[in-house]
Amino acid sequence: MTQQRGRGRPRDPEVDRAILQAALELFIERGVEGMSIEQVARQAGVGKVTVYRRWASKEELAAQAIEWMVESRRDRPSNAEVEQVKPEQLLENMLDESAELAASHDFRALVARILGSSVSHPALMRTYWKHYVLPRRKAASAMLEHAKQAGRLAPDADLDVLIDMMAGAVVYRVLQPDPPDRAEMRRYLRQIYRQAGLLPDN
Amino acid sequence: MTQQRGRGRPRDPEVDRAILQAALELFIERGVEGMSIEQVARQAGVGKVTVYRRWASKEELAAQAIEWMVESRRDRPSNAEVEQVKPEQLLENMLDESAELAASHDFRALVARILGSSVSHPALMRTYWKHYVLPRRKAASAMLEHAKQAGRLAPDADLDVLIDMMAGAVVYRVLQPDPPDRAEMRRYLRQIYRQAGLLPDN
Repeated sequence: MTQQRGRGRPRDPEVDRAILQAALELFIERGVEGMSIEQVARQAGVGKVTVYRRWASKEELAAQAIEWMVESRRDRPSNAEVEQVKPEQLLENMLDESAELAASHDFRALVARILGSSVSHPALMRTYWKHYVLPRRKAASAMLEHAKQAGRLAPDADLDVLIDMMAGAVVYRVLQPDPPDRAEMRRYLRQIYRQAGLLPDN
Repeated sequence: MTQQRGRGRPRDPEVDRAILQAALELFIERGVEGMSIEQVARQAGVGKVTVYRRWASKEELAAQAIEWMVESRRDRPSNAEVEQVKPEQLLENMLDESAELAASHDFRALVARILGSSVSHPALMRTYWKHYVLPRRKAASAMLEHAKQAGRLAPDADLDVLIDMMAGAVVYRVLQPDPPDRAEMRRYLRQIYRQAGLLPDN
């Protein structure tokens, strides 16, 4: 991702944050097609030139706003946890947090925008993929390996496809006409984990 | 869906088609945020008033363009086929067509736009859901019931969740940074069907 360009005065991190926050809000509200550098500048309370001095285009700005936001998220198990804790226990520990995130309006709105721009502006999806999705897929893959060794998966199951089925179900479900609340999402996640072999059958 | 309004001269179906086609193209290219009635009229070669006489807003127009497009699609088994043909045979028969559709640029672009607008403009998703998704879910549900009776699914498996896992994987996969080609999509669909219990294990 191209980011800051070297020209102009020394950077003020407060200004950067205000711009990124405004860009994120406008991206979620209007999509990359509906936002403009001008609106971002106005909402951040800075001049247009201040934004252009840092980002060459609204696409780059939206991509960095996504990166900035998701890098602070801690909604995945650490490597140590994945190694030491059984998948069923790990998933149970994270269930409330996962359900709350997936059922939240902000998550739904952000996912909608990123998927929505994936064909017209693939750089945004690439950023999200690299900084948010890939580390979580790695953790899921380790958990599925565990389940495979416990005999709950077919020995030749394709783990990438299985991860798509789990993650895909969640993003697909939360964008359907009747989005789930937190309680429904808890039930739903358990069903997915069981179906994928991560939880033992009842 | 509110559609045509009764005022003005008698309707010319050619004009309707030209407007719907232009609306569909602009929706896919720019999203509902990036399109306008003015552009639709220009691309269809008609006056703005001609469009407004028929549709009150670009949202209604986009919804009807989606409905108009997907209603002509025949990419699902008939009720008779679902009743008479075994799921594994049915899926095998449809595999080429399904893989070709899912891997096509048009499908990816349309799905991206509909998911992308699902939080900001839920009426578009509702239209797509009712006219395109629901009939296909009904067929999938009947096939899964079959598989359940054949003992390939847990007796208490939640079929709606399972359908989300299958359909969700496909839409999620085709919007990822490295979209699959037709051959990869064939392999991918087979994996999904097997994982869901619709195809016997190798």
